[in-house]
Amino acid sequence: MKQYKGFLIDLDGTMYRGNEVIEEAPAFVNTLREKQIPYLFLTNNSSKTPEVVSNKLNQMGIHSTPDHVFTSSMATAKYIKHKQPDARCYVIGEIGLFTALEREGLTITESECDFVVMGMDRDISYEKLAKACLAVRNGAKFVSTNSDIAVPTEHGLLPGNGSLTSVVTVSTGKEPTFIGKPEAIIMKEALSVLGTKSDDTVVVGDNYDTDIQAGINAGIDTLMVFTGLTPYEELPNLKTKPTYHVKNLSEFDVK
Amino acid sequence: MKQYKGFLIDLDGTMYRGNEVIEEAPAFVNTLREKQIPYLFLTNNSSKTPEVVSNKLNQMGIHSTPDHVFTSSMATAKYIKHKQPDARCYVIGEIGLFTALEREGLTITESECDFVVMGMDRDISYEKLAKACLAVRNGAKFVSTNSDIAVPTEHGLLPGNGSLTSVVTVSTGKEPTFIGKPEAIIMKEALSVLGTKSDDTVVVGDNYDTDIQAGINAGIDTLMVFTGLTPYEELPNLKTKPTYHVKNLSEFDVK
Repeated sequence: MKQYKGFLIDLDGTMYRGNEVIEEAPAFVNTLREKQIPYLFLTNNSSKTPEVVSNKLNQMGIHSTPDHVFTSSMATAKYIKHKQPDARCYVIGEIGLFTALEREGLTITESECDFVVMGMDRDISYEKLAKACLAVRNGAKFVSTNSDIAVPTEHGLLPGNGSLTSVVTVSTGKEPTFIGKPEAIIMKEALSVLGTKSDDTVVVGDNYDTDIQAGINAGIDTLMVFTGLTPYEELPNLKTKPTYHVKNLSEFDVK
Repeated sequence: MKQYKGFLIDLDGTMYRGNEVIEEAPAFVNTLREKQIPYLFLTNNSSKTPEVVSNKLNQMGIHSTPDHVFTSSMATAKYIKHKQPDARCYVIGEIGLFTALEREGLTITESECDFVVMGMDRDISYEKLAKACLAVRNGAKFVSTNSDIAVPTEHGLLPGNGSLTSVVTVSTGKEPTFIGKPEAIIMKEALSVLGTKSDDTVVVGDNYDTDIQAGINAGIDTLMVFTGLTPYEELPNLKTKPTYHVKNLSEFDVK
């Protein structure tokens, strides 16, 4: 097995399931720390700030600071900042998205925007969607944090940001640029934060369609773990196999 | 030109534009009355009751009673009633949809529904959409009043019911049964209300993609009028031509 200089690690299904830590996760992260290998937790969840995510991990015994967390909202903010540093953004989202855009120095506005930015918003309204549609029809660029169609909760699978985003897509006929996994965009922004190159880095995740596919799309090696969404029985059916796979993270020997 | 026993007449773009009556509309309807030819106004608008629609028409000098109005909500209620007379419905919509379902004696419920019914709802919320997704995933039949992606307003094109419905479609992977134009379903329900047969009836409308296509899909003759959405210049490009076309309704000689 190759010696990697950086790890991009998924959260839900890889480090925890909902509010329950995955048994092998804390030791895996401790091994990375002992070997002084940089790691970044990569999540499509756009609604939380890195501080909140880091707190949750620490409470589970998984060592992290806010600097170890990279959300789809943070990737979205960096993507827009690179495209247009003085961009004016009309935003539908929660605190994680607003905070990320503000931290990149972008302007959040209700009028005359360059970008319409959509993330998960459990306070979505017709008025918000109407403003987004008008701005996109008026020529604003259209960006969405992630294309997840559903969010697992204790009540069942609730609408994800990808399904909320579809209101604007269907109404205007304009497809958004999605940023989160499985897109390569979040991976490139994450590499830039982690400071490693794609061929020195490995993506760790449980969800073939997002985590592993993101690695494949960005040309980064992948470690698939069967503690989350994609069942082990699916492995033979996967068209492009992950670089490595393990039943749980204790089976992976970090060099 | 054939002598028709019934007219199915579109509203916006055919009888009025927004709040402005179309000049030739009142006389056209008066001719139908004088000749005692039954007519029904057919609208994809799901949010209003027939009483409200009829009032608006009367204020414009277009004779109507609530019995002359057939909305996509009323068609939806009749469709569900035929499928399952004791159906329990979880409903996202406005007063026009709730009223229509209640008048057909259907049960409106928040739990254990047979049908998820979606119509235009300018008070849409994440919670409403989440409940709809859970019910559809749980096996409820999925019906939507109409597939219009946008609604013309004085502010511009705002999201239509078809785009709101897409949240549930995208999140669950289940396509709804759409009822309104251009579907044949609303036309069949309308013929049943009007009491005429498809080959004795003509559909009048300005929108090729909804009004005229609905006639074509239901095997009903069509009269296209160029006072609304589809411009006259489009006529040569239409794949299936309307049975008749006139620049305005004064050009159509009612037999």
